[in-house]
Amino acid sequence: MKQREAAMSLNTSFQNIGLIAKPEGKKSQNEALGVLTKLLKDHKKRVFCEQNAAHMLKLSDSFTFTEMANEVDLAIVVGGDGTLLHAARNLVDKEVPVLGINLGRLGFLVDISPSDIGKIMVEVLSGNYKEDHRCLLECQVGDKKPQIALNDVVFHKWNVARMIEFETWINGSFLDTQRSDGIIVSTPTGSTAYALSGGGPLLSPELEVMSIVPICPHTLSNRPIVISGGSNVSFSVCGKTKSENVQVTCDGQVSMKINDGDKVKVSLYEKSLRLLHPPQYDHFQIIRAKLGWGGQQS
Amino acid sequence: MKQREAAMSLNTSFQNIGLIAKPEGKKSQNEALGVLTKLLKDHKKRVFCEQNAAHMLKLSDSFTFTEMANEVDLAIVVGGDGTLLHAARNLVDKEVPVLGINLGRLGFLVDISPSDIGKIMVEVLSGNYKEDHRCLLECQVGDKKPQIALNDVVFHKWNVARMIEFETWINGSFLDTQRSDGIIVSTPTGSTAYALSGGGPLLSPELEVMSIVPICPHTLSNRPIVISGGSNVSFSVCGKTKSENVQVTCDGQVSMKINDGDKVKVSLYEKSLRLLHPPQYDHFQIIRAKLGWGGQQS
Amino acid sequence: MKQREAAMSLNTSFQNIGLIAKPEGKKSQNEALGVLTKLLKDHKKRVFCEQNAAHMLKLSDSFTFTEMANEVDLAIVVGGDGTLLHAARNLVDKEVPVLGINLGRLGFLVDISPSDIGKIMVEVLSGNYKEDHRCLLECQVGDKKPQIALNDVVFHKWNVARMIEFETWINGSFLDTQRSDGIIVSTPTGSTAYALSGGGPLLSPELEVMSIVPICPHTLSNRPIVISGGSNVSFSVCGKTKSENVQVTCDGQVSMKINDGDKVKVSLYEKSLRLLHPPQYDHFQIIRAKLGWGGQQS
Amino acid sequence: MKQREAAMSLNTSFQNIGLIAKPEGKKSQNEALGVLTKLLKDHKKRVFCEQNAAHMLKLSDSFTFTEMANEVDLAIVVGGDGTLLHAARNLVDKEVPVLGINLGRLGFLVDISPSDIGKIMVEVLSGNYKEDHRCLLECQVGDKKPQIALNDVVFHKWNVARMIEFETWINGSFLDTQRSDGIIVSTPTGSTAYALSGGGPLLSPELEVMSIVPICPHTLSNRPIVISGGSNVSFSVCGKTKSENVQVTCDGQVSMKINDGDKVKVSLYEKSLRLLHPPQYDHFQIIRAKLGWGGQQS
Repeated sequence: MKQREAAMSLNTSFQNIGLIAKPEGKKSQNEALGVLTKLLKDHKKRVFCEQNAAHMLKLSDSFTFTEMANEVDLAIVVGGDGTLLHAARNLVDKEVPVLGINLGRLGFLVDISPSDIGKIMVEVLSGNYKEDHRCLLECQVGDKKPQIALNDVVFHKWNVARMIEFETWINGSFLDTQRSDGIIVSTPTGSTAYALSGGGPLLSPELEVMSIVPICPHTLSNRPIVISGGSNVSFSVCGKTKSENVQVTCDGQVSMKINDGDKVKVSLYEKSLRLLHPPQYDHFQIIRAKLGWGGQQS
Repeated sequence: MKQREAAMSLNTSFQNIGLIAKPEGKKSQNEALGVLTKLLKDHKKRVFCEQNAAHMLKLSDSFTFTEMANEVDLAIVVGGDGTLLHAARNLVDKEVPVLGINLGRLGFLVDISPSDIGKIMVEVLSGNYKEDHRCLLECQVGDKKPQIALNDVVFHKWNVARMIEFETWINGSFLDTQRSDGIIVSTPTGSTAYALSGGGPLLSPELEVMSIVPICPHTLSNRPIVISGGSNVSFSVCGKTKSENVQVTCDGQVSMKINDGDKVKVSLYEKSLRLLHPPQYDHFQIIRAKLGWGGQQS
Repeated sequence: MKQREAAMSLNTSFQNIGLIAKPEGKKSQNEALGVLTKLLKDHKKRVFCEQNAAHMLKLSDSFTFTEMANEVDLAIVVGGDGTLLHAARNLVDKEVPVLGINLGRLGFLVDISPSDIGKIMVEVLSGNYKEDHRCLLECQVGDKKPQIALNDVVFHKWNVARMIEFETWINGSFLDTQRSDGIIVSTPTGSTAYALSGGGPLLSPELEVMSIVPICPHTLSNRPIVISGGSNVSFSVCGKTKSENVQVTCDGQVSMKINDGDKVKVSLYEKSLRLLHPPQYDHFQIIRAKLGWGGQQS
Repeated sequence: MKQREAAMSLNTSFQNIGLIAKPEGKKSQNEALGVLTKLLKDHKKRVFCEQNAAHMLKLSDSFTFTEMANEVDLAIVVGGDGTLLHAARNLVDKEVPVLGINLGRLGFLVDISPSDIGKIMVEVLSGNYKEDHRCLLECQVGDKKPQIALNDVVFHKWNVARMIEFETWINGSFLDTQRSDGIIVSTPTGSTAYALSGGGPLLSPELEVMSIVPICPHTLSNRPIVISGGSNVSFSVCGKTKSENVQVTCDGQVSMKINDGDKVKVSLYEKSLRLLHPPQYDHFQIIRAKLGWGGQQS
C-alpha cells in the first residue's frame, strides 16, 4: 500500500494556478473569485481560469480542463463538492493537486470558508498544507470507453418504477442475485455521499477499499459490503429486467446506457487524486460538523 | 373505527365467481385454473373469467373487471401478489371479496398454495373463511383523476440520477423539506412491500394508518413516520427540482406524470378491500415464513 | 377512538398548581422556579411544591406526588423529558394535566423555554393552550404489581454480554422466537426516544398504537412492527437464556427483575396523560428542531 | 501488507493434531469426534485432546491450550463459531492453523459439515486446503493485561438501563462524544456477528481494517465507520456515566471491568489466525447460505 496518510508537503513551488468555479454561481462566488485572483496576482502567480470562472470574472480568455491540466501545478475550486468532483475527474490524470473553497457552507471536499481565503491561501502558497491521496473508480460498460468517478459508480433503475434484478460478481466469484433499486460502488470519498444515504458505512479517506451498497434491496439481509481496493466488481442484469431499464452513473454527473448483454465492470482507477487541505485540517472535525456528531465536552 | 379484525363469516352464498389470472402465466397456473374451474362447476357455481384466465382456459368469452365487479360475489386471483393488487384496485368499489391462490411461492396476499386448492375451496364455499378489511390509498396529482393503491403511493425521481427535493405537508401543517430519491406512502398491506425495503416498519394489517417512508434521504435523521388514517398528506417539488423529474406510482403498476405547480395529495380511500383467507390463516405465520423469523421451539 | 387531537381548551379554572423539578437542578432551574412561583402568586394561585422544587425554593413544606395528585388541577414540570416522564406516571391516575418547561434545551415533552415562561404561562392560565392525550403502557411481570410507562417498556439483557433469546406473543398468537439484546415496546410518545435509536418509526402522537422494536436482532429481517393499541403483548425467555439475565425497564427509570417462568405482559394503560402545550405548539416543528429536518425554504 | 488471500498450501506435514470440542456437547458432537479420531489414527497421526474433547471421548489424558499450542501443527475444532473463537484466541500466538467442523448447522468459521468429515479430512491431511489469515484485535483496559479478540471488542453499558456516554479517539484525534448502549470494534471476521446486528457493514475477510459500530446511538447520524488496521482506537467514559456502568467484552466471551479514569485501547493484534478451509471453500457461498442472499439463476 502506498503512503496515503495526510502529510505536510515541502513543495512550495505553486506558480501556475487554475481557477475553477461552479456554473451559474452567485454573488458570493464572484466575491470569492475576486479576492482569490487579487491574492494570486499579488503573489506573482499565473492564473488560468476555466470557463465558468472566466465568465464570472469577465475575462475573455478561458482554458479547457485539458489545457489547464497541462499548465497548472495547483487547481483551486470555488463551489460545492459537486464542482470539485467534476474538476477532479478532469485533472486526476495529470496529478494536479486540487484545493476546494466553499461558498459559505462547509463541504466534505471544499473545506475552506470564503472568510478564510486570505489567511489560508498564504499558508498553502508557502507550502504549509496537508495532502490526501483519494482513490477513484473506473467503470466500463460493455466495451465502451471507461469513465471515472471520485465518489461513486451507481448501477440503478431507469425509466421504470419497479425494482431491477441483477447479478454481482467479485473477482470472478459470484456474489449474489439481487432485486433492488440498484447498487452503489463507493470510494472512501463517496462514503459520505449517496452511499451514506443508502445505509453504507463511513470509510476512512486513506483506505484503498470500495463499499458496495444495495439501494432498497428486496432481501433485508442484503447489507453493505466493504471489499479490497484491488477487487474487480461486475454487474449484469438478469431475470426479467431489461437493459433499457438500467443506467450507470458516475458521481451523479455522468450517465451511461446499457445494452443487452453488457457487463458493467468497476475497479479502482490507476491514479489517485491529490486533494489539498488547510494545515489545520481535521477529517473528523468535518464529519462532526456535517453530521452533527457530539463534540468534546469542556 | 370499524371492526377490522379477521372474523369467521357466515356468508355461504357465493354463487357467481370471478377468475383472474396473471398475464403470461405458466403451466402451473394453467393447471391451477383447470382444477379450480372443475371444482367450481362441480359445486354448480357460475364462473366469470377475466381476459387472462379466459385465454389460458381457451374460453372465447371473457369479462372486463367492470363487468365482473357487477356480476360476481367472489373473485379468485391465481398468480402473485402483483396480480391481486391489480385486481383489488379494480374490484374494491363494488366490495367484491377477493381470495388469492399462489403459484407455488407463498405471497403476503396470495396465501393459498395450489396443492391445497381442493380442500380450502370447499371450506371457503361453505362459508368457512376469515375476512380482513384492508384499507387503500387515494392519490390525486394536481386536478387529474385520482388513482387508488392497495400497497403504496410512491413519489419518486424520474429520468434523473440525482436526488429530488420536495416539501411534505400533513393535514395542512408543514412537515419538512427533504432531499432524497423520493418518498413512499404505504398502507399496512404495503408495509411488507417496497416500504419495508426502504426501512419502514411492519404495520399490523387491520390498522387504519399510513406510513411515510423516505427513500435514501440525504438527512440521516429523516426516518419513517406513521400517521393516522384520517390524515391528508401532500407533496410538492421545490428547490431546483423540476416537475418532469418526478413521477407518482401506485402499487408499482400505475404511473402519473407531474406538471409544474402540481400538488400530490394522498389520503385513505373511502372503500376498503375485503380480503379472504383460509380458515387457518395466521398473519404472523406468513410474516415468519416470508421474512425468515424464528419459529416456536419444540 | 376517543378524540385525541390537540384542541383549544376552554378550561380557565387552574387554581391549585403543582411544581415539580429535576433532582440536583442547576442555577437555571432555580431561576425558572423563582420566576414561575412569583407569577403564580401574582395570579393568586395556590402552589404545591414537590420535594425537589421545595428544596430548590428553600421551602419547608413539600408534597408527595400522591398528595399533589389529589390537590392540584395543573402540574408544571421544570426540567428535562425525564423529569416529565417521572411526574406523568405519578399523576396520570388523577388525570392531572401536565405542562413542561425546559432548562434551555428543547425537549420533546418539555416544550416551553425558560425565556418564554412569563408570556406563555399567562396564556395558559387564561385557558389558551393546546391539550394532547398521550397513551401509556402497563406492564406486568409474572404476578407482580403492574408498572406503567409513558415512553416505553424495555425487555432487555442484564448482567450478561451475550444476546438473550425469547418468544413474543401478540393477542395470544405466537409472533416469533428472537435472539437479540432485547425488545422495546413503545408508545407514540416514546417513538422519539429509545425506540428511535433502535430503528423504530416515529409515531404520530395521537395514535393509539404500540411499536415493537427489536434491539440489535440476530436475524436481520426482524424489523419493527406497529400494532393496535388494543393488543396484548407478552414476552418470555426461552432457549438457554436464564431469567436472571433479563430485566424489564419502564421509561428507562423503573426496573423489574424476572423470575423463572414469568411472562412479561404489556398493553395500553386505561388512563392517558393530559399533556398541555403553548397555544402555538406544532409537533412537527419540534421534530424538525430536535432531529434537524429541513425547514421551509423562503 | 502480507499476502492474505486464500491460497492453496503445499504443506502436507500435519502430524500432531489437536482436537477441541464445545463444552456440554451433544450426541452429534460425540459421533463427529469418534469419526475424526478413528480417521486420524488410521492416518498415523498423533492426537492431542483438549479437556472437553477428552471428556467426550472418555480419555483420561487431556491437554491445556498452552500445552496443545506447543505440540500440534493443526487444531481441529468440533462445535460452533463460539468454540472456534475461544480456541483461536488461545492458539494464535503459536500460529497453529485451525480448522472448524460444525455440528450440522453451518457457521461462518466452522464450515465443514459432519457428513463430509471423511472426504474433506483426507484432502486436508494431504495438503489440499485453503488458508486464510484473519486479523485479531488487542484490547487493553487501563494498565491491565491486554486481551485479544477474533470477532470484536465491545465497550458496553453494564448494570444500568440507560445509555452511557463516552468519547472516542482515533490515532490521538478526537472522533466524537456519543450517547448510546455502547460501541463495537469489529474485525472483518466479526463483521458477520454482533457488528452486523448493530448495523455494521460486511467486511471482506482478508482486509486489515476495523469497523466501529455504535449500538443504538442517540444521535441518528452516528453511523458505522471503517478505519485502517494500523489505527489505535480509544474510549473513555464521560459526562455522568460511571465506570462501574461500563464493561468491555471480547468475542462475547471475556469481560473486563473498568475503573475510574481507565482508557480502553483497541488495535490490531500483532499475530493473525491461520484459518483453514476445505479446498472448495467459497466465502460468498457461506454468506449467501447464512444470510439468505439470492443464488445464481439457472
